[in-house]
Amino acid sequence: MSLSIKDQFTAHIHALQNAICNALEKADGKADFIADVWERPGGGGGESRVISKGNVFEKGGVNISIVHGELSLQAAQQLKVQGESFFACGLSLVIHPINPFVPTVHANWRYFEVYDEIGSVTDAWFGGGTDLTPYYLFEEDAIHFHSVQKKSCDVFDQSLYPVLKEQCDNYFCNHHRNGERRGIGGIFFDHCRGTEEKSLAFWKNFTESNGKAFLDAYLPIVKKRKDLPYTTDHKYWQEIRRGRYVEFNLLHDRGTLFGIKTNGRTESILMSLPPTVRFEYNYQPQSGSEEEKLVNVLMKPKDWLQVNTLQS
Amino acid sequence: MSLSIKDQFTAHIHALQNAICNALEKADGKADFIADVWERPGGGGGESRVISKGNVFEKGGVNISIVHGELSLQAAQQLKVQGESFFACGLSLVIHPINPFVPTVHANWRYFEVYDEIGSVTDAWFGGGTDLTPYYLFEEDAIHFHSVQKKSCDVFDQSLYPVLKEQCDNYFCNHHRNGERRGIGGIFFDHCRGTEEKSLAFWKNFTESNGKAFLDAYLPIVKKRKDLPYTTDHKYWQEIRRGRYVEFNLLHDRGTLFGIKTNGRTESILMSLPPTVRFEYNYQPQSGSEEEKLVNVLMKPKDWLQVNTLQS
Repeated sequence: MSLSIKDQFTAHIHALQNAICNALEKADGKADFIADVWERPGGGGGESRVISKGNVFEKGGVNISIVHGELSLQAAQQLKVQGESFFACGLSLVIHPINPFVPTVHANWRYFEVYDEIGSVTDAWFGGGTDLTPYYLFEEDAIHFHSVQKKSCDVFDQSLYPVLKEQCDNYFCNHHRNGERRGIGGIFFDHCRGTEEKSLAFWKNFTESNGKAFLDAYLPIVKKRKDLPYTTDHKYWQEIRRGRYVEFNLLHDRGTLFGIKTNGRTESILMSLPPTVRFEYNYQPQSGSEEEKLVNVLMKPKDWLQVNTLQS
Repeated sequence: MSLSIKDQFTAHIHALQNAICNALEKADGKADFIADVWERPGGGGGESRVISKGNVFEKGGVNISIVHGELSLQAAQQLKVQGESFFACGLSLVIHPINPFVPTVHANWRYFEVYDEIGSVTDAWFGGGTDLTPYYLFEEDAIHFHSVQKKSCDVFDQSLYPVLKEQCDNYFCNHHRNGERRGIGGIFFDHCRGTEEKSLAFWKNFTESNGKAFLDAYLPIVKKRKDLPYTTDHKYWQEIRRGRYVEFNLLHDRGTLFGIKTNGRTESILMSLPPTVRFEYNYQPQSGSEEEKLVNVLMKPKDWLQVNTLQS
């Protein structure tokens, strides 16, 4: 008997957490992930794995959750679905490195099922993506990261990457900062339901594949930049930018707000926040500086791979 | 001819900004407030005054805004009013001291008018309050701060303080942290409209009086604590607690979210965020420590002046 999509994806999430944590520990060389297993009062639970004060990683989490139970009215409204109960499982990670030349990375891959009163599945979808938040712009790193994202899309459908890349730029946007993006993007997808053209199994395979591409996308950049010398000014700028990361996550991120509003596990949700942060009134990078070069790209996202010559 | 309530309160706001900034500069002894005058595209403007890197104050702002214009549908919904245009004026301040033994303070006093299509006032109300966020608990400071708040209420109506004190405890609450309060409170009032019992002029006088009591409430605490020696551990804890301040302001504060959603001036709104902040996974103060003593009071607000023996 073959496994259900739900069981297949759950198994994938567990294996992926192990693979990513092992590889990041090896890259760090000092700190280990500490596991925190938790139960959800309404059903299910999860395992947060947190790394901190390492050689390379200042703070990070690679969390899985496999939860189920009654679908509250509030959660149903937020998700724009109707149903009596739900199942959700996913992996969410955020890694904040020490060195300001190593970018922060975020990824999330998730699956939802909604059930009616007799427990039949009435809705099911995948969502997720991977995105990069550098503090200094190395164009070759941006191109590498986006190339891996594109490759992970192209094996399924060559029309996906340009669409999901644009969705990512539009999603991770600090609207209250004149549309400044949180980072240089990647891909973002949501509400990927089975259709005649693309089955739910298609989206499962696609989501799993993007997860498996994570280490290829991120680790080469970590290795290339982690030992670059940096000054207190570089660190200062990193902490200013981390402030924008906090603003996005607490003001705009749908996942964070959904979790907070539906009484999710606060410590796991807010694991995404950076370790040390600065907020300064009207901070402006110097004209012509490397800091300004980054901001310019955040204000006007670039088509790194020139897949859409009309766009860039 | 006597001035309108709107004009009287606007004049008060200007004078109060000067008085507070002068006194805080004197207390700091090093840094001066820097003024940033801004215009609102839709009508009116304001003056942000920001202090940073002083002897005593690490970051702070004392901002006024006097704005008017079309009432957007979104703003009307948020405020739960109906009307065509509005006038709003207020003073908002947040002061983040360097020394972890000196508390952060926040205050806001504001007046709103709403007009119909022919410009007649259809609604008008005052709101505001003053609240304290210590990092270490000195009971005598809490009692002093609340005594000044109570006195500023009692001259108008002795029944006000217990109600507004409770409203403050309920408002500045991190619901996603099991109801942990942001600080030890003070008073909070909103939607104070003129009634047969208490006129709009009553609320104007009350609001002005609370504003004028600010320096009496805060400065003696600053002077008493600013030179206490502290360690990096004390500073670490202050930065952890500042993280909770950020969480409240970006996740729950109605004023912040209203400003951000209605396209307010971002730099003035987010002036409230602390200068340096830490986020750490599942940080817990040591059992029996001074840090835990503070948290206990934040989890269960205290009736500092024992005005309501049933409550405490």
